Amino acid sequence: MSLESMSLESMSLESMSWETMYATRADRMRASEIRELLKLLDQPDIISFAGGIPDPQLFPDEAFRTGFQDALSDGRAGDSLQYSVSEGYPPLRQWIMRQMAAIGVPCAIDNVLITSGSQQALDYLGKLFLSPSDTALVSWPTYLGALQAFNAYEPRYDRLNPAAMNVIPAVYADGAAQAGGRVKFAYLTPDFANPTGETLDLRSRELALALGDELDIALIEDAAYQALRYDGSDEPSLLSLDIARTGDIDRTRTIYCGSFSKTLAPGLRVGWVCAAQPVIRKLVLMKQAADLHSASINQVVIHHVAEHGFEAQILKIRAAYRARRDLMLAALQLHLPAGVTWTRPEGGMFIWLTLPEGVDGAQLLRQATATARVAFVPGRAFHADGSGANTLRLSFSLADETSIALGIERLGRLIADTGAMRG
Amino acid sequence: MSLESMSLESMSLESMSWETMYATRADRMRASEIRELLKLLDQPDIISFAGGIPDPQLFPDEAFRTGFQDALSDGRAGDSLQYSVSEGYPPLRQWIMRQMAAIGVPCAIDNVLITSGSQQALDYLGKLFLSPSDTALVSWPTYLGALQAFNAYEPRYDRLNPAAMNVIPAVYADGAAQAGGRVKFAYLTPDFANPTGETLDLRSRELALALGDELDIALIEDAAYQALRYDGSDEPSLLSLDIARTGDIDRTRTIYCGSFSKTLAPGLRVGWVCAAQPVIRKLVLMKQAADLHSASINQVVIHHVAEHGFEAQILKIRAAYRARRDLMLAALQLHLPAGVTWTRPEGGMFIWLTLPEGVDGAQLLRQATATARVAFVPGRAFHADGSGANTLRLSFSLADETSIALGIERLGRLIADTGAMRG
Repeated sequence: MSLESMSLESMSLESMSWETMYATRADRMRASEIRELLKLLDQPDIISFAGGIPDPQLFPDEAFRTGFQDALSDGRAGDSLQYSVSEGYPPLRQWIMRQMAAIGVPCAIDNVLITSGSQQALDYLGKLFLSPSDTALVSWPTYLGALQAFNAYEPRYDRLNPAAMNVIPAVYADGAAQAGGRVKFAYLTPDFANPTGETLDLRSRELALALGDELDIALIEDAAYQALRYDGSDEPSLLSLDIARTGDIDRTRTIYCGSFSKTLAPGLRVGWVCAAQPVIRKLVLMKQAADLHSASINQVVIHHVAEHGFEAQILKIRAAYRARRDLMLAALQLHLPAGVTWTRPEGGMFIWLTLPEGVDGAQLLRQATATARVAFVPGRAFHADGSGANTLRLSFSLADETSIALGIERLGRLIADTGAMRG
Repeated sequence: MSLESMSLESMSLESMSWETMYATRADRMRASEIRELLKLLDQPDIISFAGGIPDPQLFPDEAFRTGFQDALSDGRAGDSLQYSVSEGYPPLRQWIMRQMAAIGVPCAIDNVLITSGSQQALDYLGKLFLSPSDTALVSWPTYLGALQAFNAYEPRYDRLNPAAMNVIPAVYADGAAQAGGRVKFAYLTPDFANPTGETLDLRSRELALALGDELDIALIEDAAYQALRYDGSDEPSLLSLDIARTGDIDRTRTIYCGSFSKTLAPGLRVGWVCAAQPVIRKLVLMKQAADLHSASINQVVIHHVAEHGFEAQILKIRAAYRARRDLMLAALQLHLPAGVTWTRPEGGMFIWLTLPEGVDGAQLLRQATATARVAFVPGRAFHADGSGANTLRLSFSLADETSIALGIERLGRLIADTGAMRG
C-alpha cells in the first residue's frame, strides 16, 4: 500500500509498544535503587547518610559570583554564551595540565579533554571500549554510577581485586573469551573509593598496572575523591606510576578521570579526562557527536574559581569533612553492636559497613526509614553480581555534628534490634 | 604467570595499540569535515558563511547577567551549584510545557526532559533505538550532527523523502530486514532544516506521520530552528499533528527535540525532549547513567531569561536574521551565474546551493579560501550516502550587511570562473 492511498482516519489509535522498538542495550537501563530511595528521603525528620553529595554550605559562592560576573562582562559575554570547541576551554585545560603535573603527571594540553562531570567520562569510556559481551573488570563493590554508565554498552563484568596477590590474568582473559568478547579495561577508584572509602596501597597500584600490561587493557582511574585526603600521605596516582615507567603520557594505558564536583561544586558539571593523545582525540570526536561541548560559561567560571583559591577551598573542605568523618567513626564505635565492621577511610565521603551474614541492608533501610528515621544506601546495588546484601554505605559529607551523633545512635539501635529479632 | 612473579621492569614500553582495543562503533567516529574546515577559517580577511551559529551580538546579555546574579543570590546559590535531578529543573520544564501547549502540544511535566542541547537528545535517541544494523530514515541531505550522533550506534541509513508522494513503506522495511535489522525511526527537521533551509508543507507532515504508522516507528522531530520564522505562516509541528489525531501525547510516536541554542544562547547547552512518558522515563534513566543531569545553574538561568522576555528576544532575532536572509538572497540573485540554483528559506539560518553537475563543493572551498577569501560548507558531508558533491551550504546568521554583499559577490565570481575553467 502506498501512503497516497492511506488516510489519517485509518491510523492506529493504540498506544505505542515502545519496549519492542528499543535497542537491546535499553534492557539494561533500569531505575537505580539509590535514586528511588533518595526520593523517599526528602522528609525533614529523617537523618540521611544516603546521598554522596558535597555540603552546599562549603561551596565557594563568592568566587562563583565574581566568576560569572567576569564571564559576562562586556567583551567576554559573547564568547561565554557562544558555542565553543569540543576539547574544552583552553585556559581551563592549561590549569588542569599544571594540576596534573603537580601530582606527577606531566602532560600537554592535548592530553586533556573537558567533560560534563566525570560521570560523562565514564559513559564515553564505556562507549569507546565496550562492544556487547566484552568484559569490564570492576571491584565488588564499585561505584554504582560506573556500572550504570557501562551497562548501556552491554558488557560482562569480572571481579577485580587488585589488593589480592593471587590474580591470574589468564583467568580473566579466558572468561572474557568464553563470553564472546575481550577484557577491555579495568575500572578503579584508587583513592577513597565510592562506596567503601578504601584506598589502594602502592603495591596494589603496581599490581593493577601489571595486570593492565599482561592483559593489554586500559586502566580507568576514577580520581573523583583524590583531593579529599584527611590523613596519611598521598599515594601516587595510577597515571603517574604509569608515566614513571613508560616515560611519556602518550605511552601509558591509564585514563585518568578528574572532577570539580567534589572540590568546587557539582552543579556546573565540569570534569576532565587526562590520557594519551590517541584516546583524547577519539573522545573529542565522540563528544562532538554526543553534545558538541560542555557548557562554555561553566568552563570559564570553573577556571576563574580554580585560579582564585583552589588550594584554600581544598583546605576548607578537608577540615570540615575530616571532622565529620572523625565524628562518625567515633559514633560507630560507640553505638554499633558487635558483629558489625566498617572501613576507616583516610579521605573521601564514605564509610562502608558490613553487617552480620543474613542481615539484609535493603530490608534494614525500610525499617530504618519507617521507624528509626535514619537513611543510608544498601550495599547490593554496588555489586555487579548482586551480592553484598549485608553491606551498606554511609556518607558523612552532608550531615552536621548533631545529626551524625543522633543518626548513628539510631542506626546502632536498629541494627541491635534487628540482630535480636533474628536471634 | 601470576602477577606476583612479574616485575615492573618487564613491562612493555611500546606505545599502546589503541585502535585494536576500541569497540566496533569507534570505527564510525571520524573527524567532521565541518570541524576541520572551521579551524582553517579563523582568518580575519575570510568572509565566512560556514558556521551555522547565532550572532553573539544578539544574545540577551543583560538578562543572563541578572539571571546568574539571581541564581547565585543568598538562599539560592546552594541549589544552583548542587547536584539536581536528571529530569531537569521543574520550573524550566513547566515553562516548556506552556510553550509546547502554545504550539498545539498539551502535555504534562513528565513529558519533558531537559538535555544538554538538542544534540544530546539526538545522541540519546540513537542510543535508545538503534542496535547495530538497524535502519534510520533521514533525508538526503540532513543535519550532519544527527548523522554523527547516530553513527555511534552503527545504523544503516535509508533515504527519507516525505515531500515525494510515491513512498512505499514496504521498501524501507524490506531493505532494513535485508540489512539485518529494523527501521527504528525517521529523523526530520520540518522547519527551516539544516542544511537546506526548507520547510515541509502540511501534506508532507501528514505523509511522514502515515509512514510512521505504517512502519510502526518513532518520528524524531528536530525543532531547533522552529521559532525562527521570517515570513509565511507556521506549519503545525509533527507532534501537534500526532496529538490532534491520537488525542494524547502519551499515545504519540513523535519525539520532539527543542533547543534554546538558537533563541537565547548555545553556550549554556540547554535543550529539551517532549514526548510520550514511556520514552521520557527511559531517557531519564539514560541521562542519569550518562551525565547525571544537565548543569543545574544553567537550567535555573535559562528559565529566568525565558521568563523575562523570551518573546521580545524572538522578535529581535527574527528581525535581524530576516534582513540578512533578504540581503543574501538579493546578492545571490545579483551575483550567481546561470546554472546555480538555491533555496529560499522562510526561516532558520541556511541557504542551500546546487552547483552544476561536476562542480565539486569541497574543491571549490579550497579555491575559495585560497583566492576568493570566502567560506561555506561543502554539501557532501550532509549526505549519508556520500552524494551531493555539487552542493554547498551558506549561513546568513553571523555575517553583517557588508560582508554578505561582498562575500556573495566573491562567491559568484569564483563559481563563474570555475565554470569557465571547466568549460
